[in-house]
Amino acid sequence: MSVGQDMYKLCEKMFPYCRSITGDGVRQTVEALKEVQPKIKVYEVPSGEKSFDWTVPKEWRIRDAWIKNSKGEKIVDFKKTNLHVVGYSIPVDKKVSLAELKQYLYTEPNQPDVIPYVTSYYKERFGFCMTQNQYDNLPEDTYHIYIDSELFDGSLTYGELVIPGETEEEIFFSTYFCHPSMANDQLSGLALSAYLSKYVESKDKRRYTYRFIYVPETIGSLTYLSRENHLEHMKKNVIAGWNLSCVGDDRTYSMVSTRYGNTLTDKVTKNVLSFIYPEYKCYSFLKRGSDERQYNAPGVDLPICGFSRSKYGEFPEYHTSKDNLDFISSAGLFGAYNVMVECIEAMEHNHRYKIKCYGEPQLGKRGLYPTISHKGGYDEVTAMMNFITYADGTNDIVDISDIMGVPVRDLVKVAEKLRENGLVE
Amino acid sequence: MSVGQDMYKLCEKMFPYCRSITGDGVRQTVEALKEVQPKIKVYEVPSGEKSFDWTVPKEWRIRDAWIKNSKGEKIVDFKKTNLHVVGYSIPVDKKVSLAELKQYLYTEPNQPDVIPYVTSYYKERFGFCMTQNQYDNLPEDTYHIYIDSELFDGSLTYGELVIPGETEEEIFFSTYFCHPSMANDQLSGLALSAYLSKYVESKDKRRYTYRFIYVPETIGSLTYLSRENHLEHMKKNVIAGWNLSCVGDDRTYSMVSTRYGNTLTDKVTKNVLSFIYPEYKCYSFLKRGSDERQYNAPGVDLPICGFSRSKYGEFPEYHTSKDNLDFISSAGLFGAYNVMVECIEAMEHNHRYKIKCYGEPQLGKRGLYPTISHKGGYDEVTAMMNFITYADGTNDIVDISDIMGVPVRDLVKVAEKLRENGLVE
Amino acid sequence: MSVGQDMYKLCEKMFPYCRSITGDGVRQTVEALKEVQPKIKVYEVPSGEKSFDWTVPKEWRIRDAWIKNSKGEKIVDFKKTNLHVVGYSIPVDKKVSLAELKQYLYTEPNQPDVIPYVTSYYKERFGFCMTQNQYDNLPEDTYHIYIDSELFDGSLTYGELVIPGETEEEIFFSTYFCHPSMANDQLSGLALSAYLSKYVESKDKRRYTYRFIYVPETIGSLTYLSRENHLEHMKKNVIAGWNLSCVGDDRTYSMVSTRYGNTLTDKVTKNVLSFIYPEYKCYSFLKRGSDERQYNAPGVDLPICGFSRSKYGEFPEYHTSKDNLDFISSAGLFGAYNVMVECIEAMEHNHRYKIKCYGEPQLGKRGLYPTISHKGGYDEVTAMMNFITYADGTNDIVDISDIMGVPVRDLVKVAEKLRENGLVE
Repeated sequence: MSVGQDMYKLCEKMFPYCRSITGDGVRQTVEALKEVQPKIKVYEVPSGEKSFDWTVPKEWRIRDAWIKNSKGEKIVDFKKTNLHVVGYSIPVDKKVSLAELKQYLYTEPNQPDVIPYVTSYYKERFGFCMTQNQYDNLPEDTYHIYIDSELFDGSLTYGELVIPGETEEEIFFSTYFCHPSMANDQLSGLALSAYLSKYVESKDKRRYTYRFIYVPETIGSLTYLSRENHLEHMKKNVIAGWNLSCVGDDRTYSMVSTRYGNTLTDKVTKNVLSFIYPEYKCYSFLKRGSDERQYNAPGVDLPICGFSRSKYGEFPEYHTSKDNLDFISSAGLFGAYNVMVECIEAMEHNHRYKIKCYGEPQLGKRGLYPTISHKGGYDEVTAMMNFITYADGTNDIVDISDIMGVPVRDLVKVAEKLRENGLVE
Repeated sequence: MSVGQDMYKLCEKMFPYCRSITGDGVRQTVEALKEVQPKIKVYEVPSGEKSFDWTVPKEWRIRDAWIKNSKGEKIVDFKKTNLHVVGYSIPVDKKVSLAELKQYLYTEPNQPDVIPYVTSYYKERFGFCMTQNQYDNLPEDTYHIYIDSELFDGSLTYGELVIPGETEEEIFFSTYFCHPSMANDQLSGLALSAYLSKYVESKDKRRYTYRFIYVPETIGSLTYLSRENHLEHMKKNVIAGWNLSCVGDDRTYSMVSTRYGNTLTDKVTKNVLSFIYPEYKCYSFLKRGSDERQYNAPGVDLPICGFSRSKYGEFPEYHTSKDNLDFISSAGLFGAYNVMVECIEAMEHNHRYKIKCYGEPQLGKRGLYPTISHKGGYDEVTAMMNFITYADGTNDIVDISDIMGVPVRDLVKVAEKLRENGLVE
Repeated sequence: MSVGQDMYKLCEKMFPYCRSITGDGVRQTVEALKEVQPKIKVYEVPSGEKSFDWTVPKEWRIRDAWIKNSKGEKIVDFKKTNLHVVGYSIPVDKKVSLAELKQYLYTEPNQPDVIPYVTSYYKERFGFCMTQNQYDNLPEDTYHIYIDSELFDGSLTYGELVIPGETEEEIFFSTYFCHPSMANDQLSGLALSAYLSKYVESKDKRRYTYRFIYVPETIGSLTYLSRENHLEHMKKNVIAGWNLSCVGDDRTYSMVSTRYGNTLTDKVTKNVLSFIYPEYKCYSFLKRGSDERQYNAPGVDLPICGFSRSKYGEFPEYHTSKDNLDFISSAGLFGAYNVMVECIEAMEHNHRYKIKCYGEPQLGKRGLYPTISHKGGYDEVTAMMNFITYADGTNDIVDISDIMGVPVRDLVKVAEKLRENGLVE
């Protein structure tokens, strides 16, 4: 559980930064991640660079923003929460009537006490967000609206970490850092990814190479895929992967299937979740929403599932000021960490075993079978016999786990015992 | 709806004709169809010609038939309803006791107030049909039974209409005209087929060639298939088709699957019905009964489904005097017409689309995406994004419709927009 | 039913013999079987011979065994029931305290009034079995325990019967004779196998060769497979087969699927049981336990299902003194016999039929169709038409039976009629 606490602390640290798809908030965030995982490499991609069908946008810089009433009182203050400003707002400094002000205001009418999260990345406009309650109580007045921001030719920032393994085959993790002060739908994925990379690093033996990336959603994953030979390299080498998003609450576990739900990643994720939390939610790819969209797009076709606790869009706090540090917990983060560690271990041990003799082997002479037979079963022996039976060269260990209803972790021990006895290869 | 009214009027006109598998009733019927669709070509096949395992039977001509009691009162009169005579009855003119009379009478004991529809095509006999009520009340008397009919070397009549399209691939519609005065199980299919052919003709662009045939059931479809090179031609060109039967009531919608339920026709029909009437009935091929029997027979193997409102055999009025003009309606006919039009349109627009860029395209820069992002979805945008996602070259538009749960008609508009923007091919 | 009575009598005769995996009890048993089926050949395999990963064990001979109390009264007597001695017990002759005695005693605590069946084949030890009730009431005393047995280099006995047919393709039946006085989990399978072999012999025509074997479980089936070229021969020729076990009670019918449940044997067994006893239990291969374990082991891969009435391990009497002659019945045995006969007949008649004409044949001209058509169905005709429809060369008769929901036995008659009329091949 101490890993869960470490993850939570990292979230706390990163919470106040004003992230967007570009800008210094992102850079602060990646620096915080580097304190945990110093090997993350940071890249800057200039505004205007092409990313498949897209273009890297201008960089956004914001210094301050507020609305004052005629008494000079700040009734909205960016310094209190960065959700108050529509992401990518252009600068403004003028006095407006209440009627005009309302044109620039965004609220969430169905949740009158939350400040919604709103952006306008690809069209130049400005705006403020507030609660519906505040909006409803705004008096007639002359308001001073002020945003000290700029959009300029800068760069898009992303982080990348590659941890080599025995083979060039890769397991891929992606998460994003483009949302401002939100906890589940932002910080949780970053913390999980950073600490998973430490777990992977700490392993004695790594069969696979691991690639972790930290990008702004959509434009960042597309930029990453389109740069250098990433797409080609990943299509060749990535055998499984996950997009980590909203992994910090403790309500449920969720996955988003790949486009057709038929990849090794789907199989492993379902297998692991079926033992840890059989009531997990498996969403169709029609319910996608984060960067699994890009990884599974036609032509990209990478075997990447989404992994969440409560999936984006499925919890009421989503994209509001209530998705804060109270909504996530170290236990919630640790649960997600545990699932991903199990998935990694299932992958690392996922071989096609094959029994080496005809008929059942005589386990008894190897001390693996009770010497006395009477009514009633031997569960460990049954597991071993079933493993042997389905270790016919056609099933990988995850298939056998699915058939037997026994976790991969337990089967790995069985397989090890059998290998020591020369019974499987 | 005016098409529905036109179809109903055509049914009214054709109702009284005394159809059978051959004869002048059929010729009157096809003349009535030609008033609506003059391009129907009429063929005559001589009695005795071989049709695969069958032989075209003698032609049946009937002029009059009645049963008189000893007072000379007609207690059964063919001129009142042709259902009173067993189809293909040979002539008779004799006086009989009640006991003997009963040997020639057919009733429907479970529905005492209906006259059943009975035929004896392939064995020479005669008979009369009446209600069970009338039968039960027949007094002891001497009855005069009289049928003025003949079986002679004549011909079997069928109609054919081919409307050429851009390709030689064909969509096929079959219906039959061998039943006497019955509305749902006879006239509805003829009216639908005639007006569908007009719909097809009226289209600006036709990707497919359309073939409509009007035949007596069983012997007619077999004769058609066995003549010229029809079977060979159709096996090569027909990609989908429907046998139209009982399409005039308004109780439900039904389809009869092909032999294995796995053809494009099955897929399109299910797709269309799932949006128009999700409670539709999909009958196994074991429940077949009309000419889909011949089209799906081993060796013929055409992808033809049955299409009905209430399927033959599944409504109590079936094959009785209650299957009359009151049982069908213009609304019922129009519903069937609408389903078939949707099937035709789904076929005409059924392409395998393929997105042309890696990753999601940037819809925003093309004005296809909202410029401001806040909580809550955009249904049209979701549809477009989902379409793009599954337009990976492996799915046709019906598959995508099935995956997304959005009607083909709506997806066609999405596809058009994307094609205009150069995004799909 | 007289076959059921004969089977029951054979069980009665064999009940008292003290069988184990080797020894004279087995030889007595096979002699009893030979009285019914004299063509069974008996083989002896010397102790120490290798059977794949196993070794034929020493032979066990037991003459007497008892426990006496200090008054010289036999409180346990092997002569009353051979279940009192742990199978393969080594000799002992000593006086022991109650405390020491208890180290050698085996009971079934959950069923206090049964003597359990316990063995120790592959480790040398001795032991006695008694009811929990007797155990709980044993007074402090000095007990004399005595087992007059020996383990020596002898041989393992098995029986084999091959009944040749028109082809070299084989149907295989295996059963076992290594359990002492138990009825369902021992004698029923032997009786069924012997009488099935007589049924097979009595057939006028046999398309397939039939192989029946009688072996001790596990070591016996492995020995059989590993000897001569049995494994190679059987992998080449066996197309279906059953391991017969617990086929004498009348509670239910059960089958154990093959490793993946996808063989012809699975298909035929499910088909036959679905008509005879639709509530039958189909156990996954994970619930295997008898020699289907060896026949389906990786590398062996024979298409052998388990067949039972109440499956081993699933009835409370299992492996106790309550699995006696009261638990089985001639009706229970006959039910199992009937299922296996139906399976044999389904196999013998299992052809891929193919209709010889295009479209439906004209059954009427062959007298196979009613000459008058009126409302309401003709069930036999429907069956014939459905058979013709699915006799398209892709389905065997069991597939057609599954599709139509009509037993193979009935379809065989239909097929015969059609063949007589030259309609199918």
